[in-house]
Amino acid sequence: MNYNKESLIKHCSDSLQKMNVSKADSDTVASVLVSADSRGVSSHGCVRMQGYVECLKSKGIVANPTYKTVSEGPSHALIDAGQGLGIPVSVMAETIAIKKAKENGIAIVNVNNSHHHGACGYYSLMAAKEGLIGLTMSTGDIIMAVTGSSAQTIGNNPFSYAVPAGKYGNICYDIAMSTVAAGKISMAADEGRSIPLGWLLDPLGNETTDPKDYAKGGALMPFGGYKGYGLSMMVESLAGMLSGAALLKDIHAWNKNPEQSGNVGHCFIAIDPHIINPGFDLVARSEKMLDEILSSPKAPGVEKILFPGQLEQIKEARSFTEGIVLPPATEHALRKVADITGITFEPDSLAMK
Amino acid sequence: MNYNKESLIKHCSDSLQKMNVSKADSDTVASVLVSADSRGVSSHGCVRMQGYVECLKSKGIVANPTYKTVSEGPSHALIDAGQGLGIPVSVMAETIAIKKAKENGIAIVNVNNSHHHGACGYYSLMAAKEGLIGLTMSTGDIIMAVTGSSAQTIGNNPFSYAVPAGKYGNICYDIAMSTVAAGKISMAADEGRSIPLGWLLDPLGNETTDPKDYAKGGALMPFGGYKGYGLSMMVESLAGMLSGAALLKDIHAWNKNPEQSGNVGHCFIAIDPHIINPGFDLVARSEKMLDEILSSPKAPGVEKILFPGQLEQIKEARSFTEGIVLPPATEHALRKVADITGITFEPDSLAMK
Repeated sequence: MNYNKESLIKHCSDSLQKMNVSKADSDTVASVLVSADSRGVSSHGCVRMQGYVECLKSKGIVANPTYKTVSEGPSHALIDAGQGLGIPVSVMAETIAIKKAKENGIAIVNVNNSHHHGACGYYSLMAAKEGLIGLTMSTGDIIMAVTGSSAQTIGNNPFSYAVPAGKYGNICYDIAMSTVAAGKISMAADEGRSIPLGWLLDPLGNETTDPKDYAKGGALMPFGGYKGYGLSMMVESLAGMLSGAALLKDIHAWNKNPEQSGNVGHCFIAIDPHIINPGFDLVARSEKMLDEILSSPKAPGVEKILFPGQLEQIKEARSFTEGIVLPPATEHALRKVADITGITFEPDSLAMK
Repeated sequence: MNYNKESLIKHCSDSLQKMNVSKADSDTVASVLVSADSRGVSSHGCVRMQGYVECLKSKGIVANPTYKTVSEGPSHALIDAGQGLGIPVSVMAETIAIKKAKENGIAIVNVNNSHHHGACGYYSLMAAKEGLIGLTMSTGDIIMAVTGSSAQTIGNNPFSYAVPAGKYGNICYDIAMSTVAAGKISMAADEGRSIPLGWLLDPLGNETTDPKDYAKGGALMPFGGYKGYGLSMMVESLAGMLSGAALLKDIHAWNKNPEQSGNVGHCFIAIDPHIINPGFDLVARSEKMLDEILSSPKAPGVEKILFPGQLEQIKEARSFTEGIVLPPATEHALRKVADITGITFEPDSLAMK
């Protein structure tokens, strides 16, 4: 069954409003999550409703937070999110970053005292859709080993950038720092499959092919070895340290401790090419760059060369016409949400007609 | 034999002055290159003198370029480097970025019409030494395959950041986008060793263990698969596209065509934590972060957990007291330079006393 986008957004928004979140914020959260599902990024879509609602219920997330502007200038701002939901404050922060970048060429907006904010790529894309280049980073609770460590030491610290690309839509890169997402490892464990070396350490710090080691406290491994480790420290520095948010083990695992504020930090950088390089056509150059990359000779067995975010963009376009496919885990999560909110989750009533 | 830092700098500077480069610019280039050697990054040290001098001789590099400020504002600048050496304009650009960031929290300075500028980390460290966070990127000629391609399609596009870390010195991350540097593959070829899969494609686009495939036109592979590919496109976008510099195959390989201007692009971003987050002690937080990371449990066989740039920092300190070790390839390059400049390269006269 395929879901109708607007119906799904309304269902999620209604559920959040039942948890005393304002209509405006509920609409924002619902639409950002559904956007991830429509792009096939279901790990950052409506499946997160369960965690958000559980945290709202347990007061780890404040339903109607008071934001504070800690500092502000022509090219920067730092916002205290008041322990609220991560998504509404992030949309606000990115909006500020875009506005300031349009005036000054570049702007950075940091957020602390926040929470999980869905897919980083959403915010980078907000900039790209305005003709700007956007970079987005966020901290997360520790789950990954740094190079040389045997233990969970640092977050999977997502990083994203987006660049407008004219006829190609937008380049949108959105990665976490581990070789693969934890979800992929849990799935292998559920299905009794082994995993390749390079994904996971066992609790003693040895590389393992047994996905069950993750549930025993094994740490994810950074992608590309020390290069992925170093990038995770950049995100910890720019999104966590610079924001004044919690760092490393002080970031509470919200899915384990829904009653505690995570004090997550974010960083949004927007750059306006029209100011940096006036009289210059970024989009034309972007198209030319992609023309060249996408038409480069293909390796044996490769059907098509893709740019970052292209697959997600194709899926998003398909979702508009065919509706959104939700995996069983998301439907399960939405049923759990219904148990808390009392708003029944009826897939048929949300179906694409 | 260990080289005396000051003597080596003077030798390189004298050699460049013989090519009609100003004393100020010659001193700058020499000191940036020698700094890389002192940090053990010999691939970006004095070995590059040969290429610079050959390009100066062949006019691919203009000895006394005229810089043009294409655009400038409180938080940004774009500089046309006039086909000059990459290092002096980059030191100038980073200096401007630092100054503007101290006034406005963040600044971006782009450079086009430039050339190879040594190790990106040097410029990020300039910011860190002033208490700022620095990010540096540069384009380069095509040498690496994008994911799915069989051919050299994109540069190895270096990326660096640095963060002040108090008692730990500075975090300094400085990577290229391929799994390993081309030099490491050439060395394996010279020594008749095979290389692991994941480093190189043969000219048909198959993964290969034969390092000789590189000289036959094989492409380097990005680190971490599509994640490294995506990062190389970020650098191409911010350092190349945004700067208005050449892109992809339009960037001439200066070691192959010393008579052609490379039109390389750079991007320097500086961020001042004192403005973003006033009353906040970045250095104390940085130390705390490293305390936690470096003391995390070690994996079996690991003696010490390191932070990015720590090894280079240790080597740099050792070079101050014991002198600088130059590999045979660098000494060979400096002999080639002497053939052009007429300034004899006499290692003994440059030795640490």
